[in-house]
Amino acid sequence: MLARTTVVVGNPKARSRTSVAAAEVAAFVAERLDASPETTTIELPDLGAGLLGWGDPAVAGAVEAAEGADLLVVASPTYKATFTGLLKLFLDQIGADDLAGVVTVPVMVGAGASHALAVETHLRPVLVELGATMPTRGLYLQETDLAELEPVLATWWGAAEDPMRRLLA
Amino acid sequence: MLARTTVVVGNPKARSRTSVAAAEVAAFVAERLDASPETTTIELPDLGAGLLGWGDPAVAGAVEAAEGADLLVVASPTYKATFTGLLKLFLDQIGADDLAGVVTVPVMVGAGASHALAVETHLRPVLVELGATMPTRGLYLQETDLAELEPVLATWWGAAEDPMRRLLA
Amino acid sequence: MLARTTVVVGNPKARSRTSVAAAEVAAFVAERLDASPETTTIELPDLGAGLLGWGDPAVAGAVEAAEGADLLVVASPTYKATFTGLLKLFLDQIGADDLAGVVTVPVMVGAGASHALAVETHLRPVLVELGATMPTRGLYLQETDLAELEPVLATWWGAAEDPMRRLLA
Amino acid sequence: MLARTTVVVGNPKARSRTSVAAAEVAAFVAERLDASPETTTIELPDLGAGLLGWGDPAVAGAVEAAEGADLLVVASPTYKATFTGLLKLFLDQIGADDLAGVVTVPVMVGAGASHALAVETHLRPVLVELGATMPTRGLYLQETDLAELEPVLATWWGAAEDPMRRLLA
Repeated sequence: MLARTTVVVGNPKARSRTSVAAAEVAAFVAERLDASPETTTIELPDLGAGLLGWGDPAVAGAVEAAEGADLLVVASPTYKATFTGLLKLFLDQIGADDLAGVVTVPVMVGAGASHALAVETHLRPVLVELGATMPTRGLYLQETDLAELEPVLATWWGAAEDPMRRLLA
Repeated sequence: MLARTTVVVGNPKARSRTSVAAAEVAAFVAERLDASPETTTIELPDLGAGLLGWGDPAVAGAVEAAEGADLLVVASPTYKATFTGLLKLFLDQIGADDLAGVVTVPVMVGAGASHALAVETHLRPVLVELGATMPTRGLYLQETDLAELEPVLATWWGAAEDPMRRLLA
Repeated sequence: MLARTTVVVGNPKARSRTSVAAAEVAAFVAERLDASPETTTIELPDLGAGLLGWGDPAVAGAVEAAEGADLLVVASPTYKATFTGLLKLFLDQIGADDLAGVVTVPVMVGAGASHALAVETHLRPVLVELGATMPTRGLYLQETDLAELEPVLATWWGAAEDPMRRLLA
Repeated sequence: MLARTTVVVGNPKARSRTSVAAAEVAAFVAERLDASPETTTIELPDLGAGLLGWGDPAVAGAVEAAEGADLLVVASPTYKATFTGLLKLFLDQIGADDLAGVVTVPVMVGAGASHALAVETHLRPVLVELGATMPTRGLYLQETDLAELEPVLATWWGAAEDPMRRLLA
């Protein structure tokens, strides 16, 4: 059941377009599943230098929110043809397999199409290493998609719906 | 429901150790789900030169068996740090998204551990492009694992069971 | 010195647009280096079913031409978000490290930009495994680039020239 | 000519085994090329929270040291089957193509062999995006190699020597 959604946003600037897109993805899935999950949003820049070491309590809380979610949306802008260092700093705080049982949707936002594969070749393998369950394609969103995301998500949902419903409904 | 399993083996030599391992993976899943699926095994070398062109009827039958499966096990030995050309020849015959709804487990067999990531960084992205649903880790099996695969599969099943059961039971 | 260039084309249809593009890349490099290399072009479909086994003499000749080149251009269209099975069949015939000392340029041709990263995340790692020396970026060419490739290659050459000159001039 | 070497170490703990290994790689190359380069070592944890924003002067100095090097050794331990977030934070500070002309050796240190491909599938593509010249295989070093690195480096040098000499001697 989709009772808890966590959205992690790896943009060094909080409340970015990546945040908006990630929130839309989370809301879209909830709506399609007729769910009203409690939603926690983690803007990684808010965790600041706590991400550079180990044992920071705010970071620990964010890790717990990721690990305890039914649905996790992991979103990043595209930097140097892959996800940001900031996002990886956070993922480095999660133990191997500690996302077991967490249905996860990887999301990347990029200026053009040319880095689209990064979500599958770079971001997904890290999440696999953390044990995440990823039954759908990842979402690579071009900046031009962001103004009207609904049709992009609807296309994605065509294939994603069945596994998402079985895992979360 | 797990009614039909298809096993695709991309070893240039038929009836290889990769075939045996792939069959064991398929049987393991069926047993754990208390299912008795009709199982089709496609040894790619049996398709021969039909794979080099388009429209071969035996190839078309194999593609249909992959697309129509509830569970698809895609297995390859490791050549040049990734899956074989023979397997890719076959995957090239499948249309984008034509594996939609097919729960798929990627399997690679390698001599040592050093190519283990290939299953996640090379094989899985191609299967994502074909629309396959892959809710679990892929399996990278070292040749030394093959004599006794059961404990390796049991460890994998620890995390794989829940999503596999929801998608296939 | 650039005395021998080999061009390998992994399009299942010979004399494709990928062939033309690969030939242009080879000619461009030769011209910029004021070299007139002996050039061998290997259209992989011409090797046919010999690629499905081991020991075919025509395949052995093609492998030799790749291994003995000063400059190797390895080109493929984009199938399922990566290079073709046909190309991998050929690369599987080359021993690990047998491209040592061969300056190699990976080239992929695709319909749109969205698979651009495949040349770096999928094709290059296989060539690294074969020991190839790849001092430059790979080339991902969109079909719309093919009509006028010169400016695309000139941009690439901006960064590629110095290492290519040191290795080949 | 090898006049300046920069070593970047992405271990959250400074003066780590990764640092030692990276220094050995740099020294090995210098010795084999009979060079005595000025060597700058950047321990990324020393840059601290400056890496989380833009415009920090110490970070700018480190970026300059990377961009101005003849030889750049980029080293990271393996976290979650790829390089660390800390290293990516630093690479995110470098402009696309700003490593043009910098001969770069990617190095990763891991506990076992199973993440060996990460250096080629994850780290190298980011460095390609930054324009780095990488004529050799990357180095994936297992912790058990670290006690005696010389033979591992000598094997690597077998294939690396010729292009390194042409580019740096």
